Amino acid sequence: MSRSVISGERYAERLARTQALLPAHDAAALLIGVGADLVWLTGYAAMPLERLTMLVLAPEGRPTLVVPRLELAAAQTAPAVRGGLLEVATWRETESPFELVADLLAASKSRPEIQLGPLGGAWGRLGALLVSDSLRAAFLLNLQAAVPDAAFGIASPVLGPLRAIKDAEEVALLRQAAEAADRVVEQICSGRLVGRTEVDVAREVSERLVGEGHDSAAFAIVASGPSSASPHHEASDRIIAAGEPIVLDIGGRLGGYYSDITRTLWVTGDEGVGPTEDFARLYEVLESAQAAGRERVAVGVAAQEVDAAARAVIDEAGLGEHFIHRTGHGIGLEGHEDPYIVAGNDEPLAAGHAFSVEPGIYLDGRHGARLEDIVVCSAAGADSLNRASRALRVIRGT
Amino acid sequence: MSRSVISGERYAERLARTQALLPAHDAAALLIGVGADLVWLTGYAAMPLERLTMLVLAPEGRPTLVVPRLELAAAQTAPAVRGGLLEVATWRETESPFELVADLLAASKSRPEIQLGPLGGAWGRLGALLVSDSLRAAFLLNLQAAVPDAAFGIASPVLGPLRAIKDAEEVALLRQAAEAADRVVEQICSGRLVGRTEVDVAREVSERLVGEGHDSAAFAIVASGPSSASPHHEASDRIIAAGEPIVLDIGGRLGGYYSDITRTLWVTGDEGVGPTEDFARLYEVLESAQAAGRERVAVGVAAQEVDAAARAVIDEAGLGEHFIHRTGHGIGLEGHEDPYIVAGNDEPLAAGHAFSVEPGIYLDGRHGARLEDIVVCSAAGADSLNRASRALRVIRGT
Repeated sequence: MSRSVISGERYAERLARTQALLPAHDAAALLIGVGADLVWLTGYAAMPLERLTMLVLAPEGRPTLVVPRLELAAAQTAPAVRGGLLEVATWRETESPFELVADLLAASKSRPEIQLGPLGGAWGRLGALLVSDSLRAAFLLNLQAAVPDAAFGIASPVLGPLRAIKDAEEVALLRQAAEAADRVVEQICSGRLVGRTEVDVAREVSERLVGEGHDSAAFAIVASGPSSASPHHEASDRIIAAGEPIVLDIGGRLGGYYSDITRTLWVTGDEGVGPTEDFARLYEVLESAQAAGRERVAVGVAAQEVDAAARAVIDEAGLGEHFIHRTGHGIGLEGHEDPYIVAGNDEPLAAGHAFSVEPGIYLDGRHGARLEDIVVCSAAGADSLNRASRALRVIRGT
Repeated sequence: MSRSVISGERYAERLARTQALLPAHDAAALLIGVGADLVWLTGYAAMPLERLTMLVLAPEGRPTLVVPRLELAAAQTAPAVRGGLLEVATWRETESPFELVADLLAASKSRPEIQLGPLGGAWGRLGALLVSDSLRAAFLLNLQAAVPDAAFGIASPVLGPLRAIKDAEEVALLRQAAEAADRVVEQICSGRLVGRTEVDVAREVSERLVGEGHDSAAFAIVASGPSSASPHHEASDRIIAAGEPIVLDIGGRLGGYYSDITRTLWVTGDEGVGPTEDFARLYEVLESAQAAGRERVAVGVAAQEVDAAARAVIDEAGLGEHFIHRTGHGIGLEGHEDPYIVAGNDEPLAAGHAFSVEPGIYLDGRHGARLEDIVVCSAAGADSLNRASRALRVIRGT
């Protein structure tokens, strides 16, 4: 299957839609550093460096991409630059990029079409400068010093809802990533696990994620035995034994988009040590809870309702206190992004929302389990991009 | 060769040395988010999440690690937590971690051993709150709102110089990473390149970096033909042809520490199309410049002198305007960190400083070349961790 791509014309639409939203957010400009926001707006997947790269996007006029001189050629390959959608301003190794950004903002502020209030130069009159959430704090502090009269805020209230709704090209990439991750789960389930360290298995996962088409591996949680009770356990030198569970939570990036799947395995070893009754019951509750979450997904349903549906099943089984995280997170150019599937998020789900449904049950010091799919909300409900079997994977592992 | 590790006792030393430096920096506390600073101080390689994890480190007392409830088990595996060096404070999905940090700061401020000035509660009297440079801007803005009377600054003036000097365990990890990267360069040089896309080669590099012992691949610049003139070219769908150069700049992480090596290849194809005279001369200048940079490395020499030594060779050859970046950057838990080998940095090099020496020459639209080693400054000068041949690699590539 050939790799999906994002068409060039999408960037013009995204930039225009974003600019049109700025007045309603009282924003004088967005200041977008390297990261997913920049990729979404311009297609520029710049390296995260200590040197400032920043898109300056005011409500009107062509946005400017500020780039270090030595990144110019790389920036010129970005779709939005190639498409003539952006001005490009460079700075050299011994210059201050923050002064450059301040000058660009002053220039946009003095445009006649922007009405100055009675306080004249005060940025507060024109609205805030909204920075990308993941911008380095060092850059924000330098910007605050360079534009001392400005109010600063974060850009995610503007960009989060836009980025959360995936178009068909984005869904195609998420699906390719999910299918690649599904294949890696099957490969790990059919290989040897008993007697190996978690770290060794995690390394195999990373290799296989790339081998199956990811551009890079992002994470590989391999949580065996009692470590399965730690939701974000780091793979360790612990040796996997027969007769214990493994929570396998893996993902990578493909064409910029993340995969993220969790399956729980039980390795029996040659002795055939099957799941304990306790664990089998726990997993049964978990599987029902995850299904309840997926089944609750529909256009117009509040995100928190999906969390509530999964949680109710675990609560009813008397295990509620052991489900210590939200049910899911959005996914796309970032591993975690809007919409969050959490109590308190009453935003209605929309067609194109892509997110995880991943309840977990963790009994401290004993064992735990988690089951996660990436789904896309559609008119027909949850379209699960992951198709790997959701049953507890009872495998030999030798 | 077995994997090096950082001993647990190093963290107690690092925390104590950092605390002792705070008064001289007028710092009331360091606020360290997920990232290399946190790894260096505590050994905790937490996932970078939208949920706040933060080390709160005041000049006195046991530092506190603030972690999301669901990360508690992961945090407890961190060496500094296991070693009892830190308090741990958790917050739940529906609580504000920023209020928790503000409360911790207020508690440390009200300790009798800390002298309050006449302004009483004003943080300005106690010095600034210094955040890790890579902290998410969204977190900084929330902290600024939660502690509105505080002055904020960045932590790198405190931590940068400490982290820049590598101990023997760190050098061992950097060396293992460098040797693994060396092997990947040799493997790529001995394989097929002609007729493949840059992206395909980059994917092979990522797989091989992991295969040779890296925990993850970090980057793989494969810049062929005219793209070699772009220092940070992103691997593209361009098909590599016979009779052109490739700049191969690759690296990954091993035990938390980065590799980073650049070699320039020339692929002749079956027709044996060797380097043009122009290119061969350019490379000769580059190789001399890189050697001059390495040879200038010595304890007590200013960092900028290494840059000047490499630059002088390229200037003398009349190519100075085509060397558009600094000569190098420090390397360790981050790919780029102190010390920077750049004009204006008059900090003297010290034993244990680890950094790249990587001049490049780029002729826009035509071709370019770069040559990079990671070296460690020692009493005997530059100890190059990379040993792969520095000559222009003229290879068949078929």
